[in-house]
Amino acid sequence: MTYGIIGTGAIGGYYGAKLVKSGKEVHFLLHKDYDFVKENGLQIDSCDGSFHLDNINAYSSTKDMPKCDVVMVSLKSINNKLLKELLPPVLKEHTLVVLIQNGIGIEADVEKDFPNVELAAGLAFICSAKTEPGRVNHQCYGYINIGNYSCKNQAVIDTIINDFREAGVDANEVEYKEARWKKAVWNMPFNGMTVALNTQTDILLSNTNTLKLIKEQMMEVIHAAQACGVENIDEDFADKMIYNTIHMTPYSPSMKLDYDFNRPMEIYYLYTRPIEEARKAGYTMAKLEMLEAELKFLEETKSDGTKK
Amino acid sequence: MTYGIIGTGAIGGYYGAKLVKSGKEVHFLLHKDYDFVKENGLQIDSCDGSFHLDNINAYSSTKDMPKCDVVMVSLKSINNKLLKELLPPVLKEHTLVVLIQNGIGIEADVEKDFPNVELAAGLAFICSAKTEPGRVNHQCYGYINIGNYSCKNQAVIDTIINDFREAGVDANEVEYKEARWKKAVWNMPFNGMTVALNTQTDILLSNTNTLKLIKEQMMEVIHAAQACGVENIDEDFADKMIYNTIHMTPYSPSMKLDYDFNRPMEIYYLYTRPIEEARKAGYTMAKLEMLEAELKFLEETKSDGTKK
Repeated sequence: MTYGIIGTGAIGGYYGAKLVKSGKEVHFLLHKDYDFVKENGLQIDSCDGSFHLDNINAYSSTKDMPKCDVVMVSLKSINNKLLKELLPPVLKEHTLVVLIQNGIGIEADVEKDFPNVELAAGLAFICSAKTEPGRVNHQCYGYINIGNYSCKNQAVIDTIINDFREAGVDANEVEYKEARWKKAVWNMPFNGMTVALNTQTDILLSNTNTLKLIKEQMMEVIHAAQACGVENIDEDFADKMIYNTIHMTPYSPSMKLDYDFNRPMEIYYLYTRPIEEARKAGYTMAKLEMLEAELKFLEETKSDGTKK
Repeated sequence: MTYGIIGTGAIGGYYGAKLVKSGKEVHFLLHKDYDFVKENGLQIDSCDGSFHLDNINAYSSTKDMPKCDVVMVSLKSINNKLLKELLPPVLKEHTLVVLIQNGIGIEADVEKDFPNVELAAGLAFICSAKTEPGRVNHQCYGYINIGNYSCKNQAVIDTIINDFREAGVDANEVEYKEARWKKAVWNMPFNGMTVALNTQTDILLSNTNTLKLIKEQMMEVIHAAQACGVENIDEDFADKMIYNTIHMTPYSPSMKLDYDFNRPMEIYYLYTRPIEEARKAGYTMAKLEMLEAELKFLEETKSDGTKK
């Protein structure tokens, strides 16, 4: 089975490189880093063992890429409008497109443009960052869950999971909708609050006021999920997320890094869309609505009040 | 009628000085600025005409002050625990204590310590700041409303209002509870949000996301007021507040100045207490609860995560 990686950054670069290292055929789309990686290869600094790939199948356009059996999309979701142009050259009749991105509603939107393409969600549980061109720093964790959205051939999902496991990446299949909402339970509070209060996960949880607020925001996500028909996420899950985060390395989520480095934040799929879905289902996520407004303000407005 | 001013800052300094200038007997309690003001007097830089008082009745302790007919308290409300010691020396049998402070529940708390003292609320609508020792900068507005909490003698209230008017300060009597909640409709959104997003009133209102959020927070205060038995504040009042604020000078509310100058913020009476009162009455102010948590985090935590 051949793999295409659309977006060779902290996520796509890491998982793609692991597959290459275990002997899989992987084709990487690069943008800004294309020339550098073509010449120097890809460096993975990893808590599980660092390695370098001297030569990878690197492309600056999907038009130059072969069609692949599995295409993993690890672009920032704000760039998903590009998929309309990027995807067609790499699609076979039954290519599975795995969207390794955060948020709610991503698969439904890609499906609108590609009604016949089979889709799955990739839920990456990993602390990693692209620190410089062609260099990924994988700090900790690293497992990936796959949620089947519209893949008709279970063998493809099974093979992906098997390939990941052979590459030393823990992978499991999960129920699509539940997995997306479960990830939102962590993502919605921590991504935005670290930006809004210019801080890190550990500092948020060491203050009793923000600890309580994070828990309340997690409960809003859980209630929203319930309203949207995902019944089996409960308060224990929020407590477990908080416990795990307290015991994990102090961490700046991807949105905090995006904000700090003046890159656009993934506000739409992380906040706007789940808030909309919940409201349509009759539930208002009041505190996360406020966080969304704060994030949009911070994204749109410079400190002197002029538009960014 | 004689006046005592407990807390000669941006508010007490301004109103007290205006009363002195129109010939009233006023006694000022000062703390850090005592020596400077005793020697140099009080300077009021005002949009309505600046003036200097060479000599005022300045005291460094209420024990040195004469008992007064009216005592105006214009301390920051975080210092109200000091009133137990500060007030007794200046109280006659029927002294009226006017609490010119922001928030909900202030009179009820002072009443606990002074069950026989007559109280009123002073609602100051003024943009002013103490810019240096003995110097108040009055930028705009300036009127004061008086809400009778437990004053038995209407003539005292009438005289205060008359004295203010003679001093060129627009003053009116208002219904106590309604007036406190109406002021909260402006105070709760703007004080905290300018701190949380490090901005000013005009910038908040020029961004569509925060404009919407401010309106929602105002509606939370209005619903809380209704739950607490104040029926006649409606959505039109919120719209009017927003309209007025859009047309007023760009403004940093007192809490923003407190935060910027590393002084404690009045979180308790501006947020914690009204949120508690509303919850007791069956209403949850969700977004303002979140703002309270953010403010407490910002007050308690330095950027490196250690306690302030």
